[in-house]
Amino acid sequence: MPPSYNVAVLLYPSADILDFSGPIEVYTTNPPSPTPCPFKTTTFAQTNPVAAESNALVYIPDKTLAEVRAELEQYDIMVIPGGKAKLLLSMTSTDHGKEILELIQKFTALTPRPETGIRILQSVCTGSLLLAASGVLANRTVTGDHQNYEPIRQFADRAAGGNSGVNVVRKRWADAGKTDAGVRIVTAGGVSSGIDASLWIMEELLGKVRAEWVAEVMEFERRGEEEAWGVGKA
Amino acid sequence: MPPSYNVAVLLYPSADILDFSGPIEVYTTNPPSPTPCPFKTTTFAQTNPVAAESNALVYIPDKTLAEVRAELEQYDIMVIPGGKAKLLLSMTSTDHGKEILELIQKFTALTPRPETGIRILQSVCTGSLLLAASGVLANRTVTGDHQNYEPIRQFADRAAGGNSGVNVVRKRWADAGKTDAGVRIVTAGGVSSGIDASLWIMEELLGKVRAEWVAEVMEFERRGEEEAWGVGKA
Repeated sequence: MPPSYNVAVLLYPSADILDFSGPIEVYTTNPPSPTPCPFKTTTFAQTNPVAAESNALVYIPDKTLAEVRAELEQYDIMVIPGGKAKLLLSMTSTDHGKEILELIQKFTALTPRPETGIRILQSVCTGSLLLAASGVLANRTVTGDHQNYEPIRQFADRAAGGNSGVNVVRKRWADAGKTDAGVRIVTAGGVSSGIDASLWIMEELLGKVRAEWVAEVMEFERRGEEEAWGVGKA
Repeated sequence: MPPSYNVAVLLYPSADILDFSGPIEVYTTNPPSPTPCPFKTTTFAQTNPVAAESNALVYIPDKTLAEVRAELEQYDIMVIPGGKAKLLLSMTSTDHGKEILELIQKFTALTPRPETGIRILQSVCTGSLLLAASGVLANRTVTGDHQNYEPIRQFADRAAGGNSGVNVVRKRWADAGKTDAGVRIVTAGGVSSGIDASLWIMEELLGKVRAEWVAEVMEFERRGEEEAWGVGKA
């Protein structure tokens, strides 16, 4: 039996609904019981309840940010969704925003979880702005929301106090490689790109058959890493 | 200024996350304020809170089922998400399930809302099983989750007490036409198809520019009505 992967999913007041709902849908789509789902998702937020960007959906998170920070080593994957860039810019200067940036730094400094041998930091859309602001994207090749490539650079440079060496590319998702300690950083493009990035992570962990099965259940035509928004359109 | 459309979105314990999160993402994606969003979504459920299919996300709905039933005429669009077919089959014989079927019947019997001139019943994935069980799909051409075409027929026939005349087709979504009173019934295919159906409804109401803008923000490559799951794949 494959190991069970623990996925922590950050929620916050301006988070985009599909940025986190897409990955959660991918990770939790599973054949009918008794087959146990190989992924266990845990949502967390500073407040309870927490409303997403448009206030259209209001959530009760599983845990607080402090609780997840205290047990951070238990999580194999952390999903950081995006939101409107302006809101994220102001959020990063609040205590709440700083707590998030510190959590990202702390997670990225871990070694792989012994039970699974992996550790993955996954951003979706403008979630890569939060990764950039935390400093973990320096000298990496990354992507994000296609309308915010330049702010990613700016956030990363500000965190580095100069040229961060970040290379922002136009991709469906970008595998930004592993830290020295062994944490892989995966940055997805805008919104629905998070579904493709999650399916790719699933394929890396559990193989192509599983990922293709989930895509079929979702009736989702997968796009490849190089198939950024608009690529291949007539 | 175009009219504001009120969208009621059903939540229930076995509902698939993306089935309703996808349409909500489409309808609520809007340029930064002060531009008012032309859609106002209202989630409703029998219970509060309500967990979606995998229990991975727990929601606080805006209203109860009874509240929405009491003010049903205020809603222009009603979104009915799907869930696992077996769970839906058992749900339709419970009091909760019967309440949902009656709500669907009642909504479908309305005339268009005078303020907007429209009324649309929209199912996603196996949500068409609930429409079928309520009897509103008789003699219509519909679609749904590609793994449940036959159950849609069975549910519709059972509701009709014989041959319902339903025609289940393989499409990304199917516009099942209007009732005599003027309610349009739109059935989307599985899960992510709900995004395409919502973008199409948006295009019908507000034009192609708006729908293309939302698709771009979502980095979502649209598929057409005829582009069902697997169509066009190599």
